[in-house]
Amino acid sequence: MFSFTITSNDGYARTGIFLSSHGEVKTPCFMPVATAASVKLLTSEEVKSLGFDAIILNAYHLYLRPGLEIIKNSGGIHKFMNWNGLAITDSGGYQMFSLPNSRIDENGITLKSPESGTEHYFTPEKMIEIEQQIGADIIMCLDYCPKIWDNVDEIKASVYRTIAWAKRCSSAYFQKTQQLWGIIQGGTDINLRKMCLENLENIDFPGYGIGGLSIGEPWEMALEVINSLCRMIPTEKVVYLMGVGMPDQIVECVDAGIDFFDCAMPTRIARNGTTLSWSGKFNIKAAWCKNQQLPLDAECDCFVCRTYTRAYIRHLFNAKEMLGMRLNSYHNLYFIGQLMEKIRQNIKRGTFQKFKKEFLEKYKRKEQYAE
Amino acid sequence: MFSFTITSNDGYARTGIFLSSHGEVKTPCFMPVATAASVKLLTSEEVKSLGFDAIILNAYHLYLRPGLEIIKNSGGIHKFMNWNGLAITDSGGYQMFSLPNSRIDENGITLKSPESGTEHYFTPEKMIEIEQQIGADIIMCLDYCPKIWDNVDEIKASVYRTIAWAKRCSSAYFQKTQQLWGIIQGGTDINLRKMCLENLENIDFPGYGIGGLSIGEPWEMALEVINSLCRMIPTEKVVYLMGVGMPDQIVECVDAGIDFFDCAMPTRIARNGTTLSWSGKFNIKAAWCKNQQLPLDAECDCFVCRTYTRAYIRHLFNAKEMLGMRLNSYHNLYFIGQLMEKIRQNIKRGTFQKFKKEFLEKYKRKEQYAE
Repeated sequence: MFSFTITSNDGYARTGIFLSSHGEVKTPCFMPVATAASVKLLTSEEVKSLGFDAIILNAYHLYLRPGLEIIKNSGGIHKFMNWNGLAITDSGGYQMFSLPNSRIDENGITLKSPESGTEHYFTPEKMIEIEQQIGADIIMCLDYCPKIWDNVDEIKASVYRTIAWAKRCSSAYFQKTQQLWGIIQGGTDINLRKMCLENLENIDFPGYGIGGLSIGEPWEMALEVINSLCRMIPTEKVVYLMGVGMPDQIVECVDAGIDFFDCAMPTRIARNGTTLSWSGKFNIKAAWCKNQQLPLDAECDCFVCRTYTRAYIRHLFNAKEMLGMRLNSYHNLYFIGQLMEKIRQNIKRGTFQKFKKEFLEKYKRKEQYAE
Repeated sequence: MFSFTITSNDGYARTGIFLSSHGEVKTPCFMPVATAASVKLLTSEEVKSLGFDAIILNAYHLYLRPGLEIIKNSGGIHKFMNWNGLAITDSGGYQMFSLPNSRIDENGITLKSPESGTEHYFTPEKMIEIEQQIGADIIMCLDYCPKIWDNVDEIKASVYRTIAWAKRCSSAYFQKTQQLWGIIQGGTDINLRKMCLENLENIDFPGYGIGGLSIGEPWEMALEVINSLCRMIPTEKVVYLMGVGMPDQIVECVDAGIDFFDCAMPTRIARNGTTLSWSGKFNIKAAWCKNQQLPLDAECDCFVCRTYTRAYIRHLFNAKEMLGMRLNSYHNLYFIGQLMEKIRQNIKRGTFQKFKKEFLEKYKRKEQYAE
């Protein structure tokens, strides 16, 4: 039912095919974020047509709204949102721990829904049950992400808890139409990360999420953790870098050996007016865009760039017309889709290093335009 | 350059072809509202693909934002928003008079921009200059719409002012690539409406807007005014009912002889969750929709109805996902587009009365579901 095949290598960078009953995912892949069963402002058909084979959803959010009953009655999450590609659910642990009224103990997390006020207790077993009922292709273990300010003892404790919960998730998991992936925690401490991985390897997951990065630490430290982990994870396993995926980060992490990415940033910043382009990102709301009869990106051939000018899209943002957010989200995701395609092509051709250098030089040169 | 040809009659209802350099408009037609150069949440391509040949924009709004310079640099309003159908600008008089700090005198209206605080003075001549620079195919005269609570003397004064301004608009208008239409005011007083029309007829406009209706008066009174005016306006002139266009109103006013409609309601209520259907309107946010594995409207074959369920779209609204507003807007406009198509077909076949009766019976039967 599931398979992952490496199809080419270029240094540590690699292309592959991940197969599930929902088709083929060409890796390295980027997964648009559909937290509440919607990639904001875009239809499932558009996301697919933009070249994406996989999306990530949030089990905790979906549990609260629309709730399991409605998803089950719809025939599972794929049918509910008419998505016929791969779907992954993260547990939503990260989101839960950020809530002001959450309490954590060794058995899980207690929290009050910010909307309804009802109290919920999420154990690893409960989380697996929820993720099985939602019905994504891949479900992630409940993990415990330390805070950026935690000391080494606290990080160590979070790793032990993450390992213990991973074991309980693995025992609770029975629905073999889904695949369960583990999550590696340990902050920026390479030894703790290694210890976490070794323990998860004893449980033997087919894929590993690298969690708890890009939460405030310097990017160089994150990249070091990613590189170290990629050298330690057996090459046949899928490596999924969670929550990290701005264009320059993607290129650098593909070079480390990452297969899956997800990140809300490309669409979140799109809604604030930040446009991705091959010459760097910039904010379309900036005054210098107001009279530009140019596409968002002269090198882009997406529907938006073929159809509308910067002057028009800036006007839409300025006039608070939601179409502006929609068009910019579409463009930014198209950009990421094209980036992933170029990455895969260059790995296959053995030209990834050259591509990486040229891409980063050009992309970072104009970052002074960014907001 | 412009022509209007009546192609069939069924009672007072009629079909026609309005021709401009931006193609053919099949009448009776409905114009989606693109106040600030955007039909909210939808692309120009979608609006066209939904079957609409014409849109209405607001000159006052466009003058303030993005401003005439940007529209001119873009090559006019069509190119600015990539709309290749007919475009009409209303002056925006109605919107201006509603602003708290507006002052009206016989020469026009003074107001402060709610955004920038700058003061602007819009005379009839200035308004025509603005509308000519925006470059729509059809431009509307600056008119003066009385308030619903005005007495007969005040309404009479507003009619005199509307006539005087129409004369000045006509004298100022020179750009014969555009067509200038007059606007009939007079509240619900048939004699004042008649007096207004007769005076406008002396100026001789090729089309007439009926303004100042559906602003709070009982619908029966509005319909009486519309019927009376349609009997008085020469049959070769285009008759445009301004700002009125819910489904039942459209059907009743086509029966009176209306050719053009515009209305923000179908998209505005869509954003609040109200869904149009052949069995009446309802609110998709209602609890009874939450588990419905049905399309918005079982009789509709639009993209949204072919793809998504009520359960999913209700969830989107519930989760404040803007995709919900987008999908519901798309559906509601598709509904109106199909309604206009059916209206034209039935007039051509001479079956409009039967269609009207059956449509209204079914559409109004379930209005208990409406919000």
